[in-house]
Amino acid sequence: MFRLDELVERLGGELVGDATVTVSRVDTLERAGADAISFLANPRYAGQLASTRAAAVIVGARARDATTLTRIVADDPYVYFARVSQLLNPAPRPPAGVAPSADLASVVPETSSVAAGVSIGGGVVLGENVVIGPGCHIDDRVRLGDDTVLHANVTIYADCELGERCIVHSGAVIGADGFGFARERDGSWVKIPQVGRVIVGNDVEIGANTTIDRGTLADTVIGDDVKLDNQIQIAHNVTIGAHTAIAGCVGIAGSTTIGRRCMIGGQAGIIGHLEIVDDVVVSAGTLVTKSIREAGVYTASLPLQSHGDWVRNFAHLRHLDSLADRIRRLEQLLTERPDA
Amino acid sequence: MFRLDELVERLGGELVGDATVTVSRVDTLERAGADAISFLANPRYAGQLASTRAAAVIVGARARDATTLTRIVADDPYVYFARVSQLLNPAPRPPAGVAPSADLASVVPETSSVAAGVSIGGGVVLGENVVIGPGCHIDDRVRLGDDTVLHANVTIYADCELGERCIVHSGAVIGADGFGFARERDGSWVKIPQVGRVIVGNDVEIGANTTIDRGTLADTVIGDDVKLDNQIQIAHNVTIGAHTAIAGCVGIAGSTTIGRRCMIGGQAGIIGHLEIVDDVVVSAGTLVTKSIREAGVYTASLPLQSHGDWVRNFAHLRHLDSLADRIRRLEQLLTERPDA
Amino acid sequence: MFRLDELVERLGGELVGDATVTVSRVDTLERAGADAISFLANPRYAGQLASTRAAAVIVGARARDATTLTRIVADDPYVYFARVSQLLNPAPRPPAGVAPSADLASVVPETSSVAAGVSIGGGVVLGENVVIGPGCHIDDRVRLGDDTVLHANVTIYADCELGERCIVHSGAVIGADGFGFARERDGSWVKIPQVGRVIVGNDVEIGANTTIDRGTLADTVIGDDVKLDNQIQIAHNVTIGAHTAIAGCVGIAGSTTIGRRCMIGGQAGIIGHLEIVDDVVVSAGTLVTKSIREAGVYTASLPLQSHGDWVRNFAHLRHLDSLADRIRRLEQLLTERPDA
Repeated sequence: MFRLDELVERLGGELVGDATVTVSRVDTLERAGADAISFLANPRYAGQLASTRAAAVIVGARARDATTLTRIVADDPYVYFARVSQLLNPAPRPPAGVAPSADLASVVPETSSVAAGVSIGGGVVLGENVVIGPGCHIDDRVRLGDDTVLHANVTIYADCELGERCIVHSGAVIGADGFGFARERDGSWVKIPQVGRVIVGNDVEIGANTTIDRGTLADTVIGDDVKLDNQIQIAHNVTIGAHTAIAGCVGIAGSTTIGRRCMIGGQAGIIGHLEIVDDVVVSAGTLVTKSIREAGVYTASLPLQSHGDWVRNFAHLRHLDSLADRIRRLEQLLTERPDA
Repeated sequence: MFRLDELVERLGGELVGDATVTVSRVDTLERAGADAISFLANPRYAGQLASTRAAAVIVGARARDATTLTRIVADDPYVYFARVSQLLNPAPRPPAGVAPSADLASVVPETSSVAAGVSIGGGVVLGENVVIGPGCHIDDRVRLGDDTVLHANVTIYADCELGERCIVHSGAVIGADGFGFARERDGSWVKIPQVGRVIVGNDVEIGANTTIDRGTLADTVIGDDVKLDNQIQIAHNVTIGAHTAIAGCVGIAGSTTIGRRCMIGGQAGIIGHLEIVDDVVVSAGTLVTKSIREAGVYTASLPLQSHGDWVRNFAHLRHLDSLADRIRRLEQLLTERPDA
Repeated sequence: MFRLDELVERLGGELVGDATVTVSRVDTLERAGADAISFLANPRYAGQLASTRAAAVIVGARARDATTLTRIVADDPYVYFARVSQLLNPAPRPPAGVAPSADLASVVPETSSVAAGVSIGGGVVLGENVVIGPGCHIDDRVRLGDDTVLHANVTIYADCELGERCIVHSGAVIGADGFGFARERDGSWVKIPQVGRVIVGNDVEIGANTTIDRGTLADTVIGDDVKLDNQIQIAHNVTIGAHTAIAGCVGIAGSTTIGRRCMIGGQAGIIGHLEIVDDVVVSAGTLVTKSIREAGVYTASLPLQSHGDWVRNFAHLRHLDSLADRIRRLEQLLTERPDA
């Protein structure tokens, strides 16, 4: 529970109204009760300021005088809301110490926490205040920076490194072999050893069941403050720049480089050996098949239709070339006969 | 092994032929041997009635007299077959009791079964006859209803709830943090705590490596009798209505609401903040980018082509607008010159 | 570390230059140092032969005289490179033996290795030199052939079989129930027991978090030397022919048969009950909605556009049928009026 003046003292902003109001939770304008602080980030919800039962609201400068509610005026109400929510909802941390059932071949700092059923290989270096959830496997020579948290059942293969303050969700697999084979003439495959690593920066979050493969010869590299949602597949030798955020179910094929501050929509796919510059936005469901040299928003997806409309319209997709030919021929006909 | 009259006594239907025939397995018309009961649900396979070696068959009213085989006439032969198969193939259940290597901070009912390497947090409430497979992690204050089964290596985060008779397959992760961040001006991300839960109804099946994220403020809600295949990603604050079935590899983005009795095809994607009414069918591979207000079948996918045809036809997709312009101009030319 | 003459003795090829040169690693032409052997497989990189610092290179017959570097001339430099890398980077194997925390209900051969936190059901048959990584669960009556390796946190359901020399990466789930339900008139679902198995051949590699469902009545079958990347979903009753390679995030729906030596690109989808012949290549992101009867390359994906271009061009996709109608009408107009 925080008093509003405590929040402003910690997080800045201008307090308008009763500084002694206390709040114990954050909530939406619609759902908030008398114990909650809410926020207005999207002008679309401005109408809800009139009806909200929130104890206080966080608003931007433009909405400063749009309400008589007790309020904090912040540069970016959404960021401010996130910070208030962090204060009110600190991530629970298990106590430091090693569960008796953990199987350790490396030293664990006293400040770190290792849960039941964990196995940790040899030569592993854990930072301070690291949390390893139940059932995780940390293979030989892995390094995890201070304050990094692995939720339950995470697997990290040998030699991979994660920076500080990373969060890895359950079922994520970091450092499995990249998909590399040479093909014999008879079609059989010869495995190419994947001897690179996965190197993850600081402040990276990795979603549940996301997989990041180790490099073939060089490393797969995930920059600082990259945010990866669930069920993302990142192939060997990929590089992702700092602050890039990738939504769920995205697949990135081998040796592709993605810039800084990119945002990749859900279920997008990016084929291998491409370069994508900084500040690119790829829409959901879009397959990227060539390098992107300029910042901007890129899209390739189909409009949804009723099945009947789809059948009627999309049959023509098989014949676009002949449709184009017919237009060309009509144009010629009309040009050749200027009197027509 | 069941006698046919036993089956009819339990499951209904009309028995035509020798009631003392016994069957010990179900199989297709083509594969069935003399110990098996088969079924005809799809008229396409009616020809196989003549050649099947099955001891008996399940047929609908229309096929009642299409064969002289011993048969059970049922309203819905496929549903009847499913029920016979359930009788003949009861799901194996491990004995009740807790494996010595399990790590428990909560009480487990005597009728429930907890396998090796499981860890269960504090304040967890398990129903009767619950089965927790090897290596599962059940975090603090989770609730699981009677007869719910978790296969090996399932993870359930704190405070989530599953109803009765649910089945969760291996690698599923329920309740990981939703993908929620506020963006600072410099592009860096501030994590928004995900304080909602995942609430799953009764009779829900959740496939292998499927992920369901907890809500940001409110809960993510999965209705009764929802069936989820493998590798589905369900983001924070999604609501799915009862009896909806979703095939493998589907991604559903945040805050979307899906109605009752919907069927979503494999690899479909549904973007965030949409509403989809009851009884909607979405075809495989379709990206849903707007709300669907009417029941029906919806599709958006491309016709498969040989690579050469694809190159020839799809180059035009970049220029559809200019093709349309050229058609418009031709129409004008012909209209402006009525003598043309 | 190998001398070049040792490599040639083991792997064949023609050695040109100093046979006593030793190499301890493989690397790209660009990255290689004086301890490395590199290779030229793609003529695009031929220019790097001049600048590489590699101790030796592997080249094809055509590039035999394109360099004065010490070199091995091989039929297929890429396959040769893969074999050299295998010699220089043998996969690390944990020592044989069973970790004290493993929970075994079956006998493990003395040559095999079972790590911490593993649970193995009854009637399981393991071959020689099998490696079971930490946290794996092997259910009743599973069979694993000689030299097969399961990385950490793999789950194999009852009765499934893997051949020899398979590699299964972390988080893979083999043998979960296929997605099979019969629908009652009121929309509720009746589960169809999945009583088939998953049968995996020899030399198969299965990627991280890939899922392969057991068959409904018959088995799901993965042929010899099939290579599966991460996060692939293979539904019940699918059959995949030998030497087929499938990239990440592919989904294959139930009862589909894929031939031998096929290559399926990343994020492709294949709907159910199809047949795909041998030697078919499916491009990344392509949805296969009908059987493929002829070998070749097949594609269906959209060209990437800037978002503005996409909006302008793709609005027409909803109206392709009327565009086609308008072309037809223009053609009729011009034909009906031959003097036009």
